Amino acid sequence: ATGRVALVGAGPGDPELLTVKAARLLAACDVVVYDALVGGGVMDLVPGHVERRYVGKQRANHSLSQDQINSLLVALARQGKRVVRLKGGDPFVFGRGGEELQALAEAGVPYEVVPGITAACGVSAHAGIPLTHRDFAQGCLIVTGHLKDGSCNLDWPALARPKQTTVIYMGLAGLPEICAQLIAHGLPATHPAGVVEQGTLPGQRVVTGTLADLPQRVAEAGLKSPCLTIVGEVVSLHGTLAWFGQRE
Amino acid sequence: ATGRVALVGAGPGDPELLTVKAARLLAACDVVVYDALVGGGVMDLVPGHVERRYVGKQRANHSLSQDQINSLLVALARQGKRVVRLKGGDPFVFGRGGEELQALAEAGVPYEVVPGITAACGVSAHAGIPLTHRDFAQGCLIVTGHLKDGSCNLDWPALARPKQTTVIYMGLAGLPEICAQLIAHGLPATHPAGVVEQGTLPGQRVVTGTLADLPQRVAEAGLKSPCLTIVGEVVSLHGTLAWFGQRE
Repeated sequence: ATGRVALVGAGPGDPELLTVKAARLLAACDVVVYDALVGGGVMDLVPGHVERRYVGKQRANHSLSQDQINSLLVALARQGKRVVRLKGGDPFVFGRGGEELQALAEAGVPYEVVPGITAACGVSAHAGIPLTHRDFAQGCLIVTGHLKDGSCNLDWPALARPKQTTVIYMGLAGLPEICAQLIAHGLPATHPAGVVEQGTLPGQRVVTGTLADLPQRVAEAGLKSPCLTIVGEVVSLHGTLAWFGQRE
Repeated sequence: ATGRVALVGAGPGDPELLTVKAARLLAACDVVVYDALVGGGVMDLVPGHVERRYVGKQRANHSLSQDQINSLLVALARQGKRVVRLKGGDPFVFGRGGEELQALAEAGVPYEVVPGITAACGVSAHAGIPLTHRDFAQGCLIVTGHLKDGSCNLDWPALARPKQTTVIYMGLAGLPEICAQLIAHGLPATHPAGVVEQGTLPGQRVVTGTLADLPQRVAEAGLKSPCLTIVGEVVSLHGTLAWFGQRE
């Protein structure tokens, strides 16, 4: 029998934020191939008899190149296995899901894609920071601040539009440069911005401020990666709308 | 007893794309307040004894203003009910969820927010069009093309960045203007773009082309709202990666 691959988004961390479809596929697969960004609580839902293959890039001894991951997925499917390729967040938002599908399509391996709650949505919901709002933001730009060479070579004019929310994935290390560049490209130094650590998880922390003072506030709070940075007037709603870990 | 409100994203249409948490809250609530963009398959999951309050804006006889919806949510919670306020997609992406929470916060009603799969993610997964890709797009901008006065007063320079995917919600009526403005603001006429009708549902249709020919192709195919428009080089991957309704 031919195997198949389901490219599945695991959501932002809280295992209850898996989709019903993702939970069904996890319960009925033969092998899960997963990365560092998949939450531990999500992996706890994988039945004991299912094989687990860790391919994350954060444990040097076990890291695989993207080509090796692509080849592994093809090989497992050719063994007739039902493979779940599980990725943190959504597989098509900074997940290299497209590259893995290109390899599967080329090899003639059947696949499907199950979207997941991307970090921008999960974190915004749990931080009480709407991504759009009639009064403040007519659009939302999602970018990644985690670049290979350690620099932040972002499209600054695109990030610095007014009346827009900008969400930066993995941008903690570059935060001082990001804030300085946004001011240099025209946003006011008083523009609201915030950083969320461990969004959706019990340890979630939110630090808000302005482009001028956010880097220092975040450093003082000692936030650690992975974090999500949100820039925009919507961040000013956090003070009123925050609910997670705060009420009852 | 005090009631409470859960502001819940229903996802893009397929009921299996609800989160596990959303499904749990729907099964245990007293009343569901929902709009036109919530898929019929999702409402089929609501237990028979649960009260249903339709507040969508597309049936003239039953439409409520946003202020009336806000007041309804407060009133239901004050009756001690467990209210699920269900919105298509994600409640914080063009859902006016922030405005509803502001009313609840002001009234002192307890609430929580459950993110949903936003249309950009759901449709991209089911159309085989990654939102980001190392070779083609380093970021994704999400905007709405559905404006009150019927015009498309969008931030065109922000939409027309190269190496970016732009997703336009509800932009079918404005598609000719959108394509023309993107070309006028610097994108090549050959830039790939596509429109997806009924994304994630069995009737999904995808029409792709270029900024120059997409409006005519969409008109010829007779696509109807609600649709999602995706602009960017990633759209060129659809031909290789499409899987939904195509394989097996």
